[in-house]
Amino acid sequence: MDRRSFIKKAGLAGAGAGAAALATPAIAQGNQTWRMVTTWPKNFPGLGVGAQRLADRITAASGGRLTIQVYAAGELVPPLQSLDAVIDGSAEMSHGAAYYWQNKSIALSFFTGVPYGMTSREMAAWVRYMGGQELWDEIYDQFGVQGFLSGDTGTQAGGWFRNELTGLSDVQGIRFRTPGLGGRVWEKLGATVTNMAAGEIFQALQSGTLDAAEFVGPYNDLALGFYQVCKNYYFPSFIEPGLATELVVDKAKYQELPTDLQAIIRDCSQAEYDQVASDFYANDPRALKTLVDEHGVIVRTFPDDILQAGADAAVEILTELRDSDDALTKKTTESFLDALSVLRTRSESTDGAYMQAREKFFKI
Amino acid sequence: MDRRSFIKKAGLAGAGAGAAALATPAIAQGNQTWRMVTTWPKNFPGLGVGAQRLADRITAASGGRLTIQVYAAGELVPPLQSLDAVIDGSAEMSHGAAYYWQNKSIALSFFTGVPYGMTSREMAAWVRYMGGQELWDEIYDQFGVQGFLSGDTGTQAGGWFRNELTGLSDVQGIRFRTPGLGGRVWEKLGATVTNMAAGEIFQALQSGTLDAAEFVGPYNDLALGFYQVCKNYYFPSFIEPGLATELVVDKAKYQELPTDLQAIIRDCSQAEYDQVASDFYANDPRALKTLVDEHGVIVRTFPDDILQAGADAAVEILTELRDSDDALTKKTTESFLDALSVLRTRSESTDGAYMQAREKFFKI
Repeated sequence: MDRRSFIKKAGLAGAGAGAAALATPAIAQGNQTWRMVTTWPKNFPGLGVGAQRLADRITAASGGRLTIQVYAAGELVPPLQSLDAVIDGSAEMSHGAAYYWQNKSIALSFFTGVPYGMTSREMAAWVRYMGGQELWDEIYDQFGVQGFLSGDTGTQAGGWFRNELTGLSDVQGIRFRTPGLGGRVWEKLGATVTNMAAGEIFQALQSGTLDAAEFVGPYNDLALGFYQVCKNYYFPSFIEPGLATELVVDKAKYQELPTDLQAIIRDCSQAEYDQVASDFYANDPRALKTLVDEHGVIVRTFPDDILQAGADAAVEILTELRDSDDALTKKTTESFLDALSVLRTRSESTDGAYMQAREKFFKI
Repeated sequence: MDRRSFIKKAGLAGAGAGAAALATPAIAQGNQTWRMVTTWPKNFPGLGVGAQRLADRITAASGGRLTIQVYAAGELVPPLQSLDAVIDGSAEMSHGAAYYWQNKSIALSFFTGVPYGMTSREMAAWVRYMGGQELWDEIYDQFGVQGFLSGDTGTQAGGWFRNELTGLSDVQGIRFRTPGLGGRVWEKLGATVTNMAAGEIFQALQSGTLDAAEFVGPYNDLALGFYQVCKNYYFPSFIEPGLATELVVDKAKYQELPTDLQAIIRDCSQAEYDQVASDFYANDPRALKTLVDEHGVIVRTFPDDILQAGADAAVEILTELRDSDDALTKKTTESFLDALSVLRTRSESTDGAYMQAREKFFKI
């Protein structure tokens, strides 16, 4: 996912501030309206739609006692000021991804996803049963907010490449659009990494400014038309094995709510974690079929030496984080890696083994 | 999972009927108490615990307007009369697994899991986005009830075997405890299949009446002590790639509820689908580590010819269901297989490919 694209779509920050002045929480007959700012464009497939649906769920389950008014990126504040809007009280909630706030704490990356990190099932297991939520709370307590998992894309696509990749040597100097820690991985592999707004990628591919780009996966990528320029669609994304979204709530206001409304926010966020993942699992393969059948896209798997080099790069980055001088970053990295070392044994020996057996033997 | 074990633990059906006479729904100050009967023993790890937690969630989110009183297997009715208890009005809800009601409709198997069928993520995608819920509703409408997904074990373990399996020939005549459609698969492989209550398995393995047994996975199996007799623990379960649990609600009573309480039941069930899966994903590998490190259990993968024969057997069984004279069974099987053919492309080319890359290359 990309930050600048949301800023761009959001328009000027000033317009957001103007809207903020108009909207104030309504309290009437015990009913309240809360503002949810989001980092997603309106109706953005999977993620923006999920933010709206979460708001609607809370409104419905509370019988309107807590009505959630959603503001798409830029409607109230620019997308990358969403967390700040909750911190400064101009919104009660934000919906986005924790790794957008790396400038506040790099450890927040782990609650979205990191290169060669956790799948969506592993992430939920760590957060709910292996100490993840407690660490997340410790980080967000510094800012007076509370985070909840609220969605997940599942494993993403690896990217669109103009030319086939026969091995790591083909990566050297390639101009690749990919943001964040994943971008750092591809830099270590030899790519010339750049970040760029979603709406600019197509043009850059077409003009030759870019040789390759990754965004999310088939469900989102189909709409952006990359297939018109690049036919090689690589899997899997070893830099984004999942992207968890978050609901962030003003902690003091949350704690002032009656306990039933607190429960409703928690339960609805968790229901959405499943719903958003289901949306991607159902719609990614349908979109991919369209890409292949109607647009001549070729699905490819990264060559082993690229996967290996990517793993080495991820190890370097994660080791740096584990050796961080910041105690909370160090502790979060250790917890994440310890949990992953346990969780992957199940994923590999059970789920992975099942999927391989089914792929190889089950034809109907 | 096993039916008889629950019946056994439940005691006599008569005792259940007596308890039923004592419990009637309380309606005071607009508050209601609903009875949730379950197919699980009290505090049964993962599943029984999940039923209680779902009840507590609904009670909390409704602020006590809808209090759910849980009855473990046999406390109100015997476990395998749970659905009938909702149908006849002696309970408002039941928590169990849809495939326990195969005698009412074999098509209900698909909403729990079938051999070489869907993983938990695929199941939710089918049910929520690809027509699964609508078919489930059509089946349950015949009985005046409504089903919701409420949990999932994820892919289970393949079973405990006294001797190592070097190939399909080792399966011939082996006395194996495994129920349901999975049992039919193992019969086709040459095993002598028997069903048996959970509490009887250990004794049968020890006395030599059984050569092998499968139950759920490490989290549940550890407690039953099978490792004391069998050291060969095989993965993956190609007959239970997931086991979804259900919440069943009296449809007329559900529709009479205010819409906020209806929403709360739906949202809490979906939150529990994620919570139960997280519980198994976190606790299965920890239990497996205990089994290996402290009890000398050897984790093995089924030989390819067993996995292949299992797939052939599953194809036979699923083809039979697709050719069923019962229109709803035929339609449900077609929908399931069509959805699976789409969903598996994502699972294999993206999630599966990622897990294989991580397994092979990522060492930290």
